[in-house]
Amino acid sequence: MLNNLKQEVLEANLELVKKNLVISTWGNVSGFDSETGLIVIKASGVPYSQMTIDDMVVVDMEGNVVEGDRRPSTDTPTHVYLYKNFGPKGIKGVVHTHSKYATTWAQLCKSIPCFGTTHGDYFYGDIPCTRALSAKEIEEGYELNTGKVIVEAISNTDCIHMSAALVRRHAPFVWGKTPQEAVLHSQVLEYISEMAILDVLMNPELPVLEQEIADKHYNRKFGPNAYYGQKS
Amino acid sequence: MLNNLKQEVLEANLELVKKNLVISTWGNVSGFDSETGLIVIKASGVPYSQMTIDDMVVVDMEGNVVEGDRRPSTDTPTHVYLYKNFGPKGIKGVVHTHSKYATTWAQLCKSIPCFGTTHGDYFYGDIPCTRALSAKEIEEGYELNTGKVIVEAISNTDCIHMSAALVRRHAPFVWGKTPQEAVLHSQVLEYISEMAILDVLMNPELPVLEQEIADKHYNRKFGPNAYYGQKS
Amino acid sequence: MLNNLKQEVLEANLELVKKNLVISTWGNVSGFDSETGLIVIKASGVPYSQMTIDDMVVVDMEGNVVEGDRRPSTDTPTHVYLYKNFGPKGIKGVVHTHSKYATTWAQLCKSIPCFGTTHGDYFYGDIPCTRALSAKEIEEGYELNTGKVIVEAISNTDCIHMSAALVRRHAPFVWGKTPQEAVLHSQVLEYISEMAILDVLMNPELPVLEQEIADKHYNRKFGPNAYYGQKS
Amino acid sequence: MLNNLKQEVLEANLELVKKNLVISTWGNVSGFDSETGLIVIKASGVPYSQMTIDDMVVVDMEGNVVEGDRRPSTDTPTHVYLYKNFGPKGIKGVVHTHSKYATTWAQLCKSIPCFGTTHGDYFYGDIPCTRALSAKEIEEGYELNTGKVIVEAISNTDCIHMSAALVRRHAPFVWGKTPQEAVLHSQVLEYISEMAILDVLMNPELPVLEQEIADKHYNRKFGPNAYYGQKS
Repeated sequence: MLNNLKQEVLEANLELVKKNLVISTWGNVSGFDSETGLIVIKASGVPYSQMTIDDMVVVDMEGNVVEGDRRPSTDTPTHVYLYKNFGPKGIKGVVHTHSKYATTWAQLCKSIPCFGTTHGDYFYGDIPCTRALSAKEIEEGYELNTGKVIVEAISNTDCIHMSAALVRRHAPFVWGKTPQEAVLHSQVLEYISEMAILDVLMNPELPVLEQEIADKHYNRKFGPNAYYGQKS
Repeated sequence: MLNNLKQEVLEANLELVKKNLVISTWGNVSGFDSETGLIVIKASGVPYSQMTIDDMVVVDMEGNVVEGDRRPSTDTPTHVYLYKNFGPKGIKGVVHTHSKYATTWAQLCKSIPCFGTTHGDYFYGDIPCTRALSAKEIEEGYELNTGKVIVEAISNTDCIHMSAALVRRHAPFVWGKTPQEAVLHSQVLEYISEMAILDVLMNPELPVLEQEIADKHYNRKFGPNAYYGQKS
Repeated sequence: MLNNLKQEVLEANLELVKKNLVISTWGNVSGFDSETGLIVIKASGVPYSQMTIDDMVVVDMEGNVVEGDRRPSTDTPTHVYLYKNFGPKGIKGVVHTHSKYATTWAQLCKSIPCFGTTHGDYFYGDIPCTRALSAKEIEEGYELNTGKVIVEAISNTDCIHMSAALVRRHAPFVWGKTPQEAVLHSQVLEYISEMAILDVLMNPELPVLEQEIADKHYNRKFGPNAYYGQKS
Repeated sequence: MLNNLKQEVLEANLELVKKNLVISTWGNVSGFDSETGLIVIKASGVPYSQMTIDDMVVVDMEGNVVEGDRRPSTDTPTHVYLYKNFGPKGIKGVVHTHSKYATTWAQLCKSIPCFGTTHGDYFYGDIPCTRALSAKEIEEGYELNTGKVIVEAISNTDCIHMSAALVRRHAPFVWGKTPQEAVLHSQVLEYISEMAILDVLMNPELPVLEQEIADKHYNRKFGPNAYYGQKS
């Protein structure tokens, strides 16, 4: 069932290790099959060092396991909620990591300011941090509510142009048009998170990137007249 | 004698190198055999690059070598004291490293505040730093007294829920239900130590993680209704 | 066409990955053939993991592709402008990266002060940061104007003795007598950028290296009586 | 000529690369043969990636090359001066690197405070930074005078108990009873340098390690009743 997507999601999961974005059993990647409306996601608590295609679990849009007997990631309700909201716009991959520098920002409960074109080449604007969950939201449906505050956090923008959010006190969730693209966005997020920490330490008053450069860089990659990369 | 445990402790020692938690001859892992009441621990001053199973020394609960002619780690009295106190609660592995960021905290003589769920997923509350030893405690039985202040430092909590302490001015001691689990805890400690340093540099007044999220994360892994990981 | 230079530029591009100066498709290396006046540069948007000699694009001094059907790097007009200005002085290699610590300085919009001999061994004086581009300069000919402000930034010095500049809010451009030398200069730039960040954090008032030591170190490598290295 | 020592010095040089203490052609290791009074040192400007035993140059105690036609390291007069002064006390290996964190301290013109036992296990007291050279000392015999200020800097202590010094604005010189031990000391120096930077950033007023713990740790390794390591 969905063997190609399983293989893709497995590889994307293993890619997280190679890119130093996860250790042990942390984090997870999922992929969305728009044809069947099913999601493939890493099983819960499986170490990357032993992961095989059999650890890829198929769930439906209610988060129910539809194949196999492994438990999916505890974060499944978050992934499902993101696909419900971002899937119609073309998002088919979601990644969760505790990558060090992005998580440092999440622990600070702060958005990551866009300080340069490296950030601006991938993310249009500051990377938002979610609001605090209420005690009730934590108690009842914590993972689902995590999805909700992520969607809330980027409600002023667009999931295509802002493909990451920091879950307050927790860590990043990142998405893309494929699982592999979501992994790339996770890697870029980690990279710019480290630079932004150093920039703030060096100059706590550093203003964000000027809007015209942000627009130039983003548009030369993703705008209607984009000229970065090869013609497809 | 205790060949399985020796192999396990050897592998756990070598794992410290792979996880960048030790260099040269630093640090050590031990394992406890509850059946015989004996401990297997790394020999003193052996470089990891040359370590074999013959460098695993068997000592009893008084720290006496009961097999072979190698000197056990100078930290053996600390390990023994920890097993005496934590063994009855199920602790069968102890790790000592000078891992960089955890040691930076130990040198600061400060506990590591719990700033996020990455910390809270493994350690319930701040990671305590031990009190200063008196000149007498340093002079007479330094390593034993190191064990004593570690046990003191976590006396307000539980060795199962708080499986690490920073020895003031020195470095971390960490434990777990197996040597391998103690190594994992050491790796996580190092990871959260680095993030916590950056968080404090970015915001010296950063409050710790809200109690309800700490409870949620810890309990979904270790509470009575834990739902992280696979059913065993 | 220019197969030797293509091979050299390919290897220099791949060297950026080994030296941790680029990820994904970021950055680019070019080489200049002074005989034909042609430039070999990496194709736009090609991941390093799949790069072959066929991704090396030949362009002329107007930036026109003269062989093949691949788009050259979007930064080609910057490279061309640098060769126009620096080529006559012997510069035959240009590198652009978003290496982390140099880019952190570029985002700060600050020149990198020369704090020690590691910097002074390669770069004579502070590494300049370019001025802000006007909205018009961003809109019309952004990449060409990037070349112009780089040349402007080092107009008080010499492209041989100052082989790098930070493009404000963006990232470094670096050059050398060969593509390989430009890669080495990029690596050294990254190295000294990291040290300079820490030095400023430790002492925001740290004065720069005394002129006589700067002269001594630079001259023992590059002065008329240089005595570093082997006789050639 | 001195083939065993050459091999040992070659391996110690290559070890610097593996331990991330040098890049490119930076740094150098030498070894001293007390029987002949000759020194083996790396040739000047040779990249580690191509280094062979033929790049090991034999010089005498005046720094004259006594075998082969390669130029020795430009730092040879510093090494020679250190052997003249420290050789009689048993020092037979000298290392120079620009390792990142130790060099950051050298650029700050500050000694590295002993903040913990990791430092105290190897170096007895703060690692001194040399005084500024006068313009004349820079101009005439720079490398020899570098040796002189190093010896000056540790004149209050002992080259056995303090086996490193930071050359102000430059980088560390480190020594040991063998080239290999000097490499280990360089690695430890780099390790503690990084921790000390973070400790100062976290607490600019952090006091140094209490004397009794410093004594305890140093003596359990090197004192008359040392009990660390195996009986030799």
